[in-house]
Amino acid sequence: MKIEMYQMNPVIGNLKYNTQKHLDAIERAKKDHIELLVFPELSICGYAPEDLLLHPSFLDAMSVCLDQIVKASKGIAVTVGLARRSSRYGEKGLLNSAAIICDGRLLGFQDKWLLPHYDVFSERRYFSPGHDMHVWEIFGKRVGVIICEDMWQNASDIIKSTYPRDPVRELVDYRPEVLVNLTASPYQYMKIDTRLKVCQKAAETLKCPVVYCCQVGANSELIFDGYSMYVSKDQKLLKLGKGFVEDRIFIDTEVAERPLNLTFDPMHDLYEALKLGIKDYFHKTGFKKALVSLSGGVDSALVAVLAAEALGKENVTGYFLPSKKTHSSQKKGVEKLVKNLGIQYFELEIDPIVDVYKKAMENTMHEMKPKTLESLKSRVRGALLMAFSNQSEALLLNNLNKSEMALGFCTLYGDMCGALGVIADVKKSQVYELCEWINRRYECIPRETIDRTPTHEERYHPKHGEEGIDYLVVDKVLTGYIEESKTVEQIAKDTHIEKSIVEALVKKIYMAESKRRQSAPPLRVSVKSFGIGRRKPLTLSTKQIDEIY
Amino acid sequence: MKIEMYQMNPVIGNLKYNTQKHLDAIERAKKDHIELLVFPELSICGYAPEDLLLHPSFLDAMSVCLDQIVKASKGIAVTVGLARRSSRYGEKGLLNSAAIICDGRLLGFQDKWLLPHYDVFSERRYFSPGHDMHVWEIFGKRVGVIICEDMWQNASDIIKSTYPRDPVRELVDYRPEVLVNLTASPYQYMKIDTRLKVCQKAAETLKCPVVYCCQVGANSELIFDGYSMYVSKDQKLLKLGKGFVEDRIFIDTEVAERPLNLTFDPMHDLYEALKLGIKDYFHKTGFKKALVSLSGGVDSALVAVLAAEALGKENVTGYFLPSKKTHSSQKKGVEKLVKNLGIQYFELEIDPIVDVYKKAMENTMHEMKPKTLESLKSRVRGALLMAFSNQSEALLLNNLNKSEMALGFCTLYGDMCGALGVIADVKKSQVYELCEWINRRYECIPRETIDRTPTHEERYHPKHGEEGIDYLVVDKVLTGYIEESKTVEQIAKDTHIEKSIVEALVKKIYMAESKRRQSAPPLRVSVKSFGIGRRKPLTLSTKQIDEIY
Repeated sequence: MKIEMYQMNPVIGNLKYNTQKHLDAIERAKKDHIELLVFPELSICGYAPEDLLLHPSFLDAMSVCLDQIVKASKGIAVTVGLARRSSRYGEKGLLNSAAIICDGRLLGFQDKWLLPHYDVFSERRYFSPGHDMHVWEIFGKRVGVIICEDMWQNASDIIKSTYPRDPVRELVDYRPEVLVNLTASPYQYMKIDTRLKVCQKAAETLKCPVVYCCQVGANSELIFDGYSMYVSKDQKLLKLGKGFVEDRIFIDTEVAERPLNLTFDPMHDLYEALKLGIKDYFHKTGFKKALVSLSGGVDSALVAVLAAEALGKENVTGYFLPSKKTHSSQKKGVEKLVKNLGIQYFELEIDPIVDVYKKAMENTMHEMKPKTLESLKSRVRGALLMAFSNQSEALLLNNLNKSEMALGFCTLYGDMCGALGVIADVKKSQVYELCEWINRRYECIPRETIDRTPTHEERYHPKHGEEGIDYLVVDKVLTGYIEESKTVEQIAKDTHIEKSIVEALVKKIYMAESKRRQSAPPLRVSVKSFGIGRRKPLTLSTKQIDEIY
Repeated sequence: MKIEMYQMNPVIGNLKYNTQKHLDAIERAKKDHIELLVFPELSICGYAPEDLLLHPSFLDAMSVCLDQIVKASKGIAVTVGLARRSSRYGEKGLLNSAAIICDGRLLGFQDKWLLPHYDVFSERRYFSPGHDMHVWEIFGKRVGVIICEDMWQNASDIIKSTYPRDPVRELVDYRPEVLVNLTASPYQYMKIDTRLKVCQKAAETLKCPVVYCCQVGANSELIFDGYSMYVSKDQKLLKLGKGFVEDRIFIDTEVAERPLNLTFDPMHDLYEALKLGIKDYFHKTGFKKALVSLSGGVDSALVAVLAAEALGKENVTGYFLPSKKTHSSQKKGVEKLVKNLGIQYFELEIDPIVDVYKKAMENTMHEMKPKTLESLKSRVRGALLMAFSNQSEALLLNNLNKSEMALGFCTLYGDMCGALGVIADVKKSQVYELCEWINRRYECIPRETIDRTPTHEERYHPKHGEEGIDYLVVDKVLTGYIEESKTVEQIAKDTHIEKSIVEALVKKIYMAESKRRQSAPPLRVSVKSFGIGRRKPLTLSTKQIDEIY
């Protein structure tokens, strides 16, 4: 059987655009004599449509799109993803379904059984779980069709999964000759390996090849990396879709292919994920131009490089906003960077503005506290950048990294300004790694920027009265507490960091909850980012926090 | 049977504090010869604990608290709410339970069957639904115990509810002599009436009295109003807890009580809800003092009144930050208001600061666009207010109303600054209503503030090039689209507002999504606020929006 996976980049909610992409793909596939064309999960509306699914008119429109796709499918079989209403199913009356179409006829639907509702997933908010299982006769082959999470319980020995049912196992009796999975699985540092294992497990259980078609593209916080897979009956990876771009992957189940080795460069993927996150946010919201605040540090340099690559250097403008305290090496770093990147750049001193604020406030306060002054400076920069943004209709990108966001070493309405938290899920240690990786490809981040404060001495805002803490220590605690859900005791034991330090850092994480609530949406690249996937109460005082970990 | 409902205000996550409240309440109840003491839903951890429930150590600690409460319950029966692990239950392995304790012994648990996961509720993220039903022998009475939502499916003829099971109906065979419901039901304008009907329906189905014990208190966005109820077998309201404060409600099932009429003043409740929202946010996060930006308009006046009442006038400072364009009547309004409220007040002109920004930016832009300038002014005010906030360790309250938040008539990092969106779920028309209501009690909001721009002429930022739209029109569209989930067509038909205007306003709502994403948490008082209960994709462009409604 000749199968094509169309690893598609839908625009969430743009049904016309997405449907047209389906129709075009069907025409192309017909010309290429494809028998079965596979689209990703919820391909008609894009994943995740969130509360758009609560609009009856949106659901109506989606069913009209399906009709169009069915009509266009003469002479070919197609599986597409959509949300559909069904009064047979309780509670939500809405299903996350795959429509199975053959030769201009809708054969039926396979509904998603396992609805993820943890971390960034909220499918139970919208969908009821499916109950029925089918196998579909398509051009003489018995094809099983399932959706994304439906394949994961079968691999519960390698991943943590506790659903009471296992759709793959229940498919065994239907003896499918090929399993198709429509997927929307967000990128996560190092996740691709797990996906392959899950595909292999399904191939093992069903003794048939697995066609795993993934969504690609970024939708605000979530980045979908693509990397669709075709795994043979004997669990070999035979085809791998490209990462971070749309792709058509052709499969002939009758032809013996040479197995591939799954090799990937985690830094390359992280870099491409962030680039795609920027690119699609701009593309999908209709913006072209970006502003980046340049400080001469690694964080802003990294964001500038990513922006220039994602949007084109002609669409990125850098702003260097020094104060009297800014070191001349920072300026040098900025100048070299913008030259290397070929982006436009402006410089503007903030001191005259800060001074006039201070003067204006003289009568209302005896002496401005250092913290007030530091925050004010940050907000003057924020206001300047936002004025440039308003004036040029360019979006400001935010430069804060995950380590700073975690501890609250950032200023609301100051350095927290911006439309998108480009590296807000990238820890400081990863920022350095990524900068070195970039420079190995093309030396564009100046050495003085990377070396300015030697890595092992980089401190978090000692000027705020914080005890200087090595960011490597911070990142270890962050990894343990946020990403690996370890307790303070466990972290102290595993990292040999003093328990009191771990505790103090974890407290800081909680105390910054209300700040983060107003932060720019972070591009999610880790297993747990500070975004929609992490929901902590805001009304926690220091006293209470002792009891949580 | 002598029953006490303890309408308790827990602090989310503060297990020690909450447990002590349980222990104190048990001691008091024993002295008062109470046989059964009822606490609200999740009383040990507070509702809603959100992702704290994902910490195993937090769950462990909760079970230790339960042990303490069991031990303290010699000679009395108690029902408390908590989250508990149970390996018997699939997927989440965690249950939202009521512990039934009698005379120092834990009789068992009744688990919540119906887990709300819509709007602001995400219980499926944490809990598996319960399956078992019991009736409990307590001092010779057969007592049925259920949790909150478990009672709502039974009233599906009066409210929209589509759960496949109905715990109340399934309790019938157990012939309870009294039904106890542990509840955490957030305040919503005019909701109390519905709650009574739901209680009455359960009393009718079970032919027994209903003891409906509610949580009270505010937890960032959600405000719990209390108003616990006792409804007789023949569906009469016999007892009603106080609104917006902790309360002990005493019931003697053997004594014939005079039925009450449920009368309530919606404006009083709205006012009290907002006050409690402020008070508890400060109390629970450990802050004492608030700043309010005063403009001489109704919105800021309302917030100042609420803050002064919630926190005490000595804890509220007003700031009037006029520009050259500010009208003298605004200043007069502010002066009268602060005098009436007796709060401290500072005035500071923003023009010198705005001018120095303009000068600094001269070299980088030909002419500042009006929109850039307007936003800059707003951000100068924001930076000043935040500097005062940093300096005095007072939280800034945000003054934006729901109509402005809906249409995006607000400036990120400018008038959107603040820790709490006090009236962000109150429409402009309700702001006026509330001001008039306040003045009827005590004339504190100056007439010139209320009348400054006559109600029917109030326009939304015509200076931004927006066509002047009457806020009454805006509010009707807002009510229809956001709160009543109507389509554009329906709204046009129902309100006689031109369809093109409805459409233009709905588009504006979507275009402001990314701004709202960074807004202060709004105090939720309507059926649908712009907060955690409304999740729209950020990557929607104007083109797409046409297809959604």
